[in-house]
Amino acid sequence: MLRRGFQAAVILGHHGARPGATHLLPRFNPASAFGSSMESLVSRFCQEMTEGKNYALPNASWGPDMLSLYHEFLEKTKTDGWVRVPSFRSNRDHIRGFKLPLELSANSDKSDWRLFTRCIEREGQGYEYVIFFQPSEKKSICLFQPGPYLEGVPGFAHGGSLAALIDETFSKTAYLSGEGLLTVNFNIRFKKHFPPDAAGRGFISTLDTVPSGKPTDNHLAYRGPTAAQGGVPKK
Amino acid sequence: MLRRGFQAAVILGHHGARPGATHLLPRFNPASAFGSSMESLVSRFCQEMTEGKNYALPNASWGPDMLSLYHEFLEKTKTDGWVRVPSFRSNRDHIRGFKLPLELSANSDKSDWRLFTRCIEREGQGYEYVIFFQPSEKKSICLFQPGPYLEGVPGFAHGGSLAALIDETFSKTAYLSGEGLLTVNFNIRFKKHFPPDAAGRGFISTLDTVPSGKPTDNHLAYRGPTAAQGGVPKK
Repeated sequence: MLRRGFQAAVILGHHGARPGATHLLPRFNPASAFGSSMESLVSRFCQEMTEGKNYALPNASWGPDMLSLYHEFLEKTKTDGWVRVPSFRSNRDHIRGFKLPLELSANSDKSDWRLFTRCIEREGQGYEYVIFFQPSEKKSICLFQPGPYLEGVPGFAHGGSLAALIDETFSKTAYLSGEGLLTVNFNIRFKKHFPPDAAGRGFISTLDTVPSGKPTDNHLAYRGPTAAQGGVPKK
Repeated sequence: MLRRGFQAAVILGHHGARPGATHLLPRFNPASAFGSSMESLVSRFCQEMTEGKNYALPNASWGPDMLSLYHEFLEKTKTDGWVRVPSFRSNRDHIRGFKLPLELSANSDKSDWRLFTRCIEREGQGYEYVIFFQPSEKKSICLFQPGPYLEGVPGFAHGGSLAALIDETFSKTAYLSGEGLLTVNFNIRFKKHFPPDAAGRGFISTLDTVPSGKPTDNHLAYRGPTAAQGGVPKK
């Protein structure tokens, strides 16, 4: 497992949209696209599927601390209204019945499409993560264990790999909250590298995503703190 | 190939570093680590290697427009001082003789480490890119052709996949400029989605990275415009 090199504070926002400026990103509201409430959106998105691997379930590469946190949040799905967000090879397999605006409609070719954060299929080598979503607070926690295919500086996860996972967590949170789909802005400030005595041990990050800004035009428009923090020895 | 969904304007900066705040990211200057000039740093980094695949070279998946731009910049390496930056499976294979500060020194285990932006080995499925660096201007251009493993919204590249490549381009530019290694801040504003009539066709982005800020403490400290733009039909 990689050492995680940083703590990150992240804000996704709709900063800098000038009054009168042309918005080139399409307006889109997932809840209204379904003509349904957030509850039914979440229910539809998170229902069990029999076909296709759900990458949000534990596998043999998960360290004991990742598993421990996973079970802690799994308990919360029974008692505190949290939802474990399933994760498939492609959003095409996932968002059934999902109607995108015409300008975003996907072609139907037979390419081997993969969700970027699930592009590495070998267990433990790339992203191992699971997102838990709290509908009443429109908040998510992402448990994350990086593997050696996410390397940047030798021994450390690539800053871009964390950025991508943060973007994915925000996107899913925004989608499930019925507040948007596409990232407009995102700002990351890396604050800390991970201490050297964790070399070769597992690492778990939690991304606590609390959207507090109100989108102005159905784009993703978040202003909330996100912290990737931790550093739990694998054994 | 994926449609590329956005134009991006990016600034990497050292914003918000408060006077007196503890800097937790290690101070590091590649040029001083080598005890050498930028020229020798670039020369060492960009020398040909006989072993290991150089992913910055064209392969059969590159579309005609990607190839055309590649050859255009290759000409500039002969006439205008541009340097084609090689790219290997891991920075461990690349940065030979590279001495990191103690707190960043990599362990020497035998894991299958891979640079995140080269984690997908199947040609044309993930990242296809090459960075050209202009030493006198401390500027880079990244030619980029995304594949179907970089998907976010069906049919579009994941915003995080572009963020990661921008981070990689900035990091390499900063490293070769002798100005840093680790990203402190990065801010992305996605401005435009790619028009629908490009469905299923290739797309090429150029990342024009011009560092204009002076780093204050050998961290990556950039303030420069970066535009990912284009949208060239594959055929």
